[in-house]
Amino acid sequence: MQTRVLAFDGDDTLWHNESRFKLTQGALRDLVHRHVPDADVDSHLFDVEMRNLKLYGYGVKAFTLSMLETAIELTDGRIPAADLQVILGWGKRMLTAPTELLDGVEASLRDISAHYSLLLITKGDLFDQESKLARSGLADLFTGVEILSDKTVDSYRSLLRRRDIRPEEFVMVGNSLRSDIAPVVALGARAVHIPYHITWDHERMPDDSLPSSGWYRLGGIGELVGLLESIDQRRIDV
Amino acid sequence: MQTRVLAFDGDDTLWHNESRFKLTQGALRDLVHRHVPDADVDSHLFDVEMRNLKLYGYGVKAFTLSMLETAIELTDGRIPAADLQVILGWGKRMLTAPTELLDGVEASLRDISAHYSLLLITKGDLFDQESKLARSGLADLFTGVEILSDKTVDSYRSLLRRRDIRPEEFVMVGNSLRSDIAPVVALGARAVHIPYHITWDHERMPDDSLPSSGWYRLGGIGELVGLLESIDQRRIDV
Repeated sequence: MQTRVLAFDGDDTLWHNESRFKLTQGALRDLVHRHVPDADVDSHLFDVEMRNLKLYGYGVKAFTLSMLETAIELTDGRIPAADLQVILGWGKRMLTAPTELLDGVEASLRDISAHYSLLLITKGDLFDQESKLARSGLADLFTGVEILSDKTVDSYRSLLRRRDIRPEEFVMVGNSLRSDIAPVVALGARAVHIPYHITWDHERMPDDSLPSSGWYRLGGIGELVGLLESIDQRRIDV
Repeated sequence: MQTRVLAFDGDDTLWHNESRFKLTQGALRDLVHRHVPDADVDSHLFDVEMRNLKLYGYGVKAFTLSMLETAIELTDGRIPAADLQVILGWGKRMLTAPTELLDGVEASLRDISAHYSLLLITKGDLFDQESKLARSGLADLFTGVEILSDKTVDSYRSLLRRRDIRPEEFVMVGNSLRSDIAPVVALGARAVHIPYHITWDHERMPDDSLPSSGWYRLGGIGELVGLLESIDQRRIDV
């Protein structure tokens, strides 16, 4: 069966995301170190984020709240409110920054959209993701947009059902083994992994915990057209 | 044409919401007054929320961030971080509180779901709303759930198209004239207004800015079955 629906993750697959979080996290490190020079800001922030994940979900607002909590805890409440106001400002800056597409995204999507039905499947904060998509200039290439609170086998299964898509005709493209590849392969659909140069610790997963077939890895989105041609030709030949 | 799809707003239509925000807002007022006794906390918070709406959208995380900003601004940065930590805690408490259904909701929805296809259409934070619905025990009564970043004529129009629903067969039930009634009536569908005892200022709208027909007002959800019978009979009689 040929691929009919090609779905893309957004953050770090179509546009830069994690690099911005890391940049802001670096600024938080410097800010906290002014009060507590030997604080392990990165690992404390990660712990706070994981603790809050079930309450806040993903996204910039959740990240901002966790940064504030981290800064207060690490300084034992000695951080002045003015510094916390600076952190609030970082969150706002992240929410208004222009959507920066990864290299080759626009050209590849334009080529591909002529042959497949394109879906955007992102997780995170609804408001934030809609706004990023609007600012990306890509919205008209997609036949549908799905923003999930989390990407699990169950959430992909119900999405495919709802949209009347069979796993055999579905290919998911994304940068996260945990969110974009593993659950999709588990459903019998195929997935294409395009790594981003930074991965959030929470999204990390060793390659060998995935099945050996059902997914592909590319160096960049520019290689996608070639892969699709080869996948669908092979299947046609059978 | 008979009603086929009956859609419900969630917050303050099916479960209590605004009353919790007001409770937390009262606590913020007391906290800020300890530092600045004559501060006008309510109106400053409202201004901050409106300023942030385009960045944060709706929901508890947005509210928490705006409370923090308000407290810092009104105290000119003199509020101790420990007090801001208390505000962070209020946000978390709001996110974990059990979903408290309004009187009569469960019984009415069970009756109605036997005769109509039920949709839940809420706005706000995706993660927060999914979690509230899960905790409500009502999820199995709905054939679909739509969480919108905002409720406008355009967002209702694209929802109806996506779900293949004609305006004539659609009735929206909610507590907000601005979000649940006005945009739906503008599309040629019908709406039922069931006021909640508190309305957030942002959702307020004078009755006379709405068309005189196409919508109904009820005192409580218990009256909905009777109204639907009368609407659909009248239409059947024509």
